[in-house]
Amino acid sequence: MEGKLIAKLPEEEHPQITFGWAAKDQSGVLSPFKFSRRATGENDVKFKVLYCGICHGDLHMSKNDFGFSTFPVVPGHEIVGVVTEVGDKVEKFKVGDRVGVGCFAGSCRSCDYCKNDLENYCSEMIFIFNGKYYDGTTTHGGFSDIMVTDEHFIVRIPDSVPLDAGAPLLCAGITVYSPLRYYGLDKPGTHLGVVGLGGLGHMAVKFAKAMGVKVTVISTSPNKKQEAIESLGADSFLISHDQDQMQGAIGTLDGIIDTVSAVHPLLPLLGLLKSHGKLVLVGIPESKPLELPVFPLLFGRKIVAGSIAGGMKETQEMFDFAAKHNITADIEVIPMDYVNTAFERLLKADVKYRFVIDIGNTLKSHH
Amino acid sequence: MEGKLIAKLPEEEHPQITFGWAAKDQSGVLSPFKFSRRATGENDVKFKVLYCGICHGDLHMSKNDFGFSTFPVVPGHEIVGVVTEVGDKVEKFKVGDRVGVGCFAGSCRSCDYCKNDLENYCSEMIFIFNGKYYDGTTTHGGFSDIMVTDEHFIVRIPDSVPLDAGAPLLCAGITVYSPLRYYGLDKPGTHLGVVGLGGLGHMAVKFAKAMGVKVTVISTSPNKKQEAIESLGADSFLISHDQDQMQGAIGTLDGIIDTVSAVHPLLPLLGLLKSHGKLVLVGIPESKPLELPVFPLLFGRKIVAGSIAGGMKETQEMFDFAAKHNITADIEVIPMDYVNTAFERLLKADVKYRFVIDIGNTLKSHH
Repeated sequence: MEGKLIAKLPEEEHPQITFGWAAKDQSGVLSPFKFSRRATGENDVKFKVLYCGICHGDLHMSKNDFGFSTFPVVPGHEIVGVVTEVGDKVEKFKVGDRVGVGCFAGSCRSCDYCKNDLENYCSEMIFIFNGKYYDGTTTHGGFSDIMVTDEHFIVRIPDSVPLDAGAPLLCAGITVYSPLRYYGLDKPGTHLGVVGLGGLGHMAVKFAKAMGVKVTVISTSPNKKQEAIESLGADSFLISHDQDQMQGAIGTLDGIIDTVSAVHPLLPLLGLLKSHGKLVLVGIPESKPLELPVFPLLFGRKIVAGSIAGGMKETQEMFDFAAKHNITADIEVIPMDYVNTAFERLLKADVKYRFVIDIGNTLKSHH
Repeated sequence: MEGKLIAKLPEEEHPQITFGWAAKDQSGVLSPFKFSRRATGENDVKFKVLYCGICHGDLHMSKNDFGFSTFPVVPGHEIVGVVTEVGDKVEKFKVGDRVGVGCFAGSCRSCDYCKNDLENYCSEMIFIFNGKYYDGTTTHGGFSDIMVTDEHFIVRIPDSVPLDAGAPLLCAGITVYSPLRYYGLDKPGTHLGVVGLGGLGHMAVKFAKAMGVKVTVISTSPNKKQEAIESLGADSFLISHDQDQMQGAIGTLDGIIDTVSAVHPLLPLLGLLKSHGKLVLVGIPESKPLELPVFPLLFGRKIVAGSIAGGMKETQEMFDFAAKHNITADIEVIPMDYVNTAFERLLKADVKYRFVIDIGNTLKSHH
């Protein structure tokens, strides 16, 4: 009750009026929401949001699937736009720059992880939405018309990368790019498996191919085979429930990027790995544990690993790599008021491969 | 039936009569067994067995716990003795040398693993007992009076390492030494957790301390604390079911060597790791999978890994390292006919920390 008595209206909390769409409760249904953002501080970049991708994380947080959502939730963490104001001490950006912000609004900046460009593993990392900012207010994401973000957490979008198809690189892209690099699965001669061909999976195929890696897609959907090979450039395709195909591929992979977020068996995937192979989980799962068979870990010195997003330096590197290799996401651009339908379709994996909201043209500022 | 018709008696299979103890069925009870070994081939070393350690693997295989035992089973894979004969082409050993053989009797010698001194991960690796040798016969382990083994799979026991307390290095020792090296947990400044203080665990503490690593033992048994710290040299001790102790140690370890072979929860162990920490499983588990919580892997980029034994080159290195640092196993020497009691006590973890059978003095060659 105390909190309620002293709480301000969302639009009165800060000086800059902001319009967005928010989930008001765990129904997860989004609707227009008027709130506010802080004044542009000396280290802050303010930008007009033009596009924002939709990730499973947005959906899960809107429905409180992880159990720590604070409503209202304004999702969106693949946010791109054009700078409209910069603080006095901002060095890297100026008005008019094409910029983006991904999962993070802040971190401690002083721990070993932060000092080594691994803000994503900082224990005080602040998520770009549904996070608690330094001033005690809740962060709100990119389903909104403006962003105000510390320049450290802003990346530059290279001129050759389109803003709409570049937006998903900020989560889907870096989430697969970072483990390819960290786990050494980025070398020509490497044979990589990519499990699940969705937003993350299709980016993994593109990045790995650009790195000169041989890619096998492993999917439950036979009808994705043609596209995986012909459009995305994968070298081969395995249907995960086809015993003969899976048996025939045993011991052939150096590593796997597993993008599946549902509970699923690891044993067949571990079987596809050579000795010393690495199974890297990047899909954020339900809270249920997976079953871990131990024999393959011991007798093949295989590892099961994970990775989440990437640090700011690496995210910028990824954009520069994407620009050099003409890599963008395959997207379906939608208007803001289609977002609830998009959530429903996302749940059914009915999108190739990422929804991106055209915030600039379709988010109405007055209701 | 066909197999039975053409099968020879075990003692007629090969020219060299051998006496040992074998499990005849999955009761796992051992009793005297007369069999035979091949003539000493041009690359073979024949040695008189003096001591043999007892490992959980011996117990499990004797009871067919893994489901692929071929009876009779002559266990024993921590085998040491003195050379009595060498083949014409043997280069490294001569009669009178102190030698040992561990888990492996053979491997393909031509695959990438074998060429890189990782025979233990060769897909055609032949276990020293209950394995199928090139001539089609079943291999028999060190609970026997003589061994005939290809010199490639023989190690030299340094003069300063006693044969009895050195025997367990051949499995318990290398099983923990190899992952300490491979996973980079061998550097001064590293903080290592060792889960389970048995045959493997106590060796892990000794090796890690000799490497200059800080060691915390994690155990279910409060009464092991004093010995872990005072005798083995561990720096600290956590009781795994003490919530306060475990909470207080969250995020403090760089890596863990987990020697527990029973089903056990990984979540508390993953919690003890820093970000980027490594949980290395080395206990051979029951066939049941463990539960793998995924969030710690993602948000801390932690890994769950495994390791089994070590290659021959590394096993020799380990012995040289042990000699330099005066490392041996803590053992209880027993006579051959005590083996069934030892098996029962091993099941109850009632040994500090390894049984070693005095084969040379107590295995009677005629019954």
